[in-house]
Parts: sequence; C-alpha cells; structure tokens
Amino acid sequence: MPNSNAAHLHRALSCSPACVGLDPVLEKLPEALRGEHWEPARAIEHFCRGVLDAVAPHVRIIKPQSACFERYGSAGWLALEHTVRHARDLGLLVILDAKRGDIGVSAEHYAAAAAGLGAHAITVSPYLGAETIEPYLDAGLVVFVLVRTSNPGGDGVQAPVLGDGRSVAGMVAEMVRDLGASRTRSGTDGSAGVNPVGAVVGATKAREGVALRGLMPDTVFLVPGYGAQGGTLEDVRGLIRPGATGAGDGSVIVNSSRGVLYPGTPDPARWSGGVGAAAARLAGDLRDLFARR
Amino acid sequence: MPNSNAAHLHRALSCSPACVGLDPVLEKLPEALRGEHWEPARAIEHFCRGVLDAVAPHVRIIKPQSACFERYGSAGWLALEHTVRHARDLGLLVILDAKRGDIGVSAEHYAAAAAGLGAHAITVSPYLGAETIEPYLDAGLVVFVLVRTSNPGGDGVQAPVLGDGRSVAGMVAEMVRDLGASRTRSGTDGSAGVNPVGAVVGATKAREGVALRGLMPDTVFLVPGYGAQGGTLEDVRGLIRPGATGAGDGSVIVNSSRGVLYPGTPDPARWSGGVGAAAARLAGDLRDLFARR
Repeated sequence: MPNSNAAHLHRALSCSPACVGLDPVLEKLPEALRGEHWEPARAIEHFCRGVLDAVAPHVRIIKPQSACFERYGSAGWLALEHTVRHARDLGLLVILDAKRGDIGVSAEHYAAAAAGLGAHAITVSPYLGAETIEPYLDAGLVVFVLVRTSNPGGDGVQAPVLGDGRSVAGMVAEMVRDLGASRTRSGTDGSAGVNPVGAVVGATKAREGVALRGLMPDTVFLVPGYGAQGGTLEDVRGLIRPGATGAGDGSVIVNSSRGVLYPGTPDPARWSGGVGAAAARLAGDLRDLFARR
Repeated sequence: MPNSNAAHLHRALSCSPACVGLDPVLEKLPEALRGEHWEPARAIEHFCRGVLDAVAPHVRIIKPQSACFERYGSAGWLALEHTVRHARDLGLLVILDAKRGDIGVSAEHYAAAAAGLGAHAITVSPYLGAETIEPYLDAGLVVFVLVRTSNPGGDGVQAPVLGDGRSVAGMVAEMVRDLGASRTRSGTDGSAGVNPVGAVVGATKAREGVALRGLMPDTVFLVPGYGAQGGTLEDVRGLIRPGATGAGDGSVIVNSSRGVLYPGTPDPARWSGGVGAAAARLAGDLRDLFARR
C-alpha cells in the first residue's frame, strides 16, 4: 500500500513547516471555558476546536498531545476523536503525539487506534527496536521516532557513548535512517519522495541536532522545543536539510505548543484572535527563515 | 505521600507471583462472544469480566494491555475503565501495561489517566530519562520501567555496549536501581519495604536477566514472555532475588497472557472454566518453583 500520508506530509511542508501542538490543559484555558457548566473533556474539546479554526489559515500541521486528552478517560478520548475529525475537515495534517512503543501485536493495536482516530502520523519510542516501528508503517501511518528529546533528563539515556563512538541517540538515528531508506526503496511507502520515517529532534539540542542531520540527511525532523521551551530560529536553521531550496524540501517541522495556545492575549474574550495571531507569527518567522537562507 | 500501592503489591506477591495479562483480541474470543450482536468493545469487556472472575481465585495480579482496548477508541477506553473497576472489586492488583514515556507535563497527564482509571501500577519507557518517570511515582503509582524486553528486536537498542562496558539495558537498570533507592530511602514511597520502582525483564532474556538481577538486587521484576512466548520456569528461577525465602520476597511477578486467555478448551461454551484452570496451573507451577528452591 503506498503511503498516501507521506505524500500529504510533503504537500503540507511545501506550504509551511509550522506545526501547532495541541496540549490543552484545563487550568490554562480561557476563562470563558472554565465555568462550572463545563465538563473538563468538553471544555478541552471546545478550546481545541477554537484553536483549530484560528490556526487553520496559517499552518498545515497540528500535533495533538494524547496525554492531555487521556487524562479525562473515555470522555477525553472522545474529545480527541472529535478534535482530530475537525482538524481533518479543515484539511490539516494530524500528528498524534502519543510516543507509543510496544512489541509486535500491541504495536499493531496502537497503530489501528491512531489510524482509526484519523491521524496521519504518530510519534513512537525506539526502545523496543525497529521491528516494533514497522506495524505503524504497515498501517499507512507516517512515524516520527524519538531520537533526541528536548527535555534535560533525556541526556541520561540518549547521550551516553557506545564502544564504537556513537551516542545512543546516534545509534537510534542510524536505525531510523535505515528503516526509512528501506521503506522508501521498497516503494511501498515512499510516495512523492518523502521518507515515511521521521525523527523527533528537540530544538534545545541544536549542536547535537546538526550531527544527527548528518546521520539522517533524508529524514523529516519533527522539532519540538521551539519558543516557550527555549529553542530559537538559529537552532532550527542548523536542522534544515543541506541543499534545501525551501520549506518543501527542508525536512523540518517546527512545533510550537504553549507559545501559540496561550499567547497571553490582553482581552480574554478574544482569545481565539490571539491564538490565530500567534500561529501567523510562527508561520511568518519560519517563512522568513527559509527566505533568508 | 506513602505509596500504598507498593504495600498492596507486597501483599499480592506474598500470595502469589502469578500475573495474568489481559490482551483481549477480538478474533480470538470465544465464539459465543463474537456473534453479530456484539459491539467489539463490549465483547472484549464481557470477555475480560469473565476472565477476571475465573482467575481471581488463583492469582492476585492482572496486567491489562492498554493497546487492546485503545484500538476501539473511546468505547474501548470505557471497556478498560469497567475492566479495571471490576478487577479492583475482586481485590486484584492492576498493572496497566501502557509503556508510556513523555516529558514532564505530559507524563503527569499520563499518570493522572492511569490513576484515574484505578490502576495501581503502570509500565513506562525509559528513553526520555529518569525525570520523566518521577511523575508516575508522585501520583502514587508503582512503575515498571522497560529494561530488557522479550521481543527479538529489542536487542538492536538494548544490547549495544557503552564505552564503559555496560549495555544500554545495564545503564537503564542502574537508573532504575538508583531511582528506586532514592524513593525507598526518602520513605515517601517505600512502604512495607517494597521499592516502588520495578523493572520489566523478559523471561526470554534469561542469561542477561541474571546479570540484571545483580545490578538491581532489590527491584521487583515484571517478567513477560513466560509460556507462549518461550520463557520457562528455569528462566524465571534465575531472576528471583538471591536469598529469597519465598514468593513474598522473591521480587518477581511472572506474567502469562495468551497461555491463560486462550487455553484451547475443548468445549468452547465452557471457556471460562478453561481460563480458570490455566490460571490455577500458572499459580501452581510458580508455587512449586518456590517450594523446590
């Protein structure tokens, strides 16, 4: 089965590498949505709907954080289902940030869950090995494998150096590169020249990110940590694919969550306007970055 | 907050180290539950209820596989909620096999989801570092960190050797040991002498498991891969804590999923009898193992 989601990703990237992370947290919602008559999962769903409508004119990719919905159980999952459906109705590409990782049969179930939800892509953990990533690809999903994460504690596991000189993250990067090459070569998943196996590389690990780009020249990087977490445009610049002519072949997706969702709009009643403006700024900054290269 | 779930685990282990994995798969359900009038999530819930009733006289610990429920979306999640509630009503300890792993805030959400569900413990991935495991402990959950998994592909990431001679799994084992020691020492989570930080070590990796036991002498091992996946009683023997006087301080939980759920009972109408008999055999085999030491 050709991976039509990889082709969709390619088209989205050609428009903009900006991605808005949907990490809805009840305590941070606009006041109007936190009234007593709001059930938590419903409030979050309503907020996400407003965010999607506000950002859709500016970005092509969104990344819902599964944990934020799951904490409200089956009601939260229903809110996630509705949110993904609305995003699809708006033509947005959906990366489910679920960081799943389990052995064969269970991975198939997780892949079925993500595909059933309507996600085009999913984030996955590499700790159980390459074979546990295959089922997501077999289900037609694009995957983004955690390689180098943006949090400080990731160093403890990802930075240690192997006997052959590679870091653990570097070893995972080679696994990601090889899996992507094999899927692209086989022609079963590599539609439109986009490798269906991407990598998560935090903007806050920019120096290592440059080295990881060397190891994974043809891999799309999903870059969290931009903005509120401290990553800068300069950090992103080093992650762009060498020789890229623009965002379409730059192979980076730059995610901002808090910076867009909670921009601190002065008038709380007009929160969605603030969200839209923040998304426009994110997209504009990235457009400038590619124009200046 | 003392971790009352760690104390609960200690009591359960004193009765039996046997754990039944709830990995319900629609195609494998007894014929009576696969009729046209069964909605998939409802069929799975009904099956799990029957399994719990059948195994409760023989085992004290169950491990629902989150993926099997999630694949049916919000309806599946509801089935998981009902299943966990019924397990708790039967006095069983519930390890949610979710293999979650995400950075700080998202980990808090996942921990809230598991605790809200009523789980006593959860399996987590180590790839994002020790700091991402803390939120589950802060939520009062016992955690089982993936150290050495039972699948062949795990070798690619877990077996490589670092410059200092440790394997990646060995490095993670030390992280698990240190995190557990710090939590036990602080007295906040180490009720009843049970370390709240456990490790997943597959029965199929028995040789390495013995070395990992050396690195984690006081850690409870959750051991998948027994039975259908090829792990034997001899393999389990090597993972028991040296000096243990019985199952109560043996620090191993031995999981069987397929071997108990689908025992191939000749009369399909009496499937739950077959499940109960298989759980009794599992518990009996493990009782004999400890008695023979």
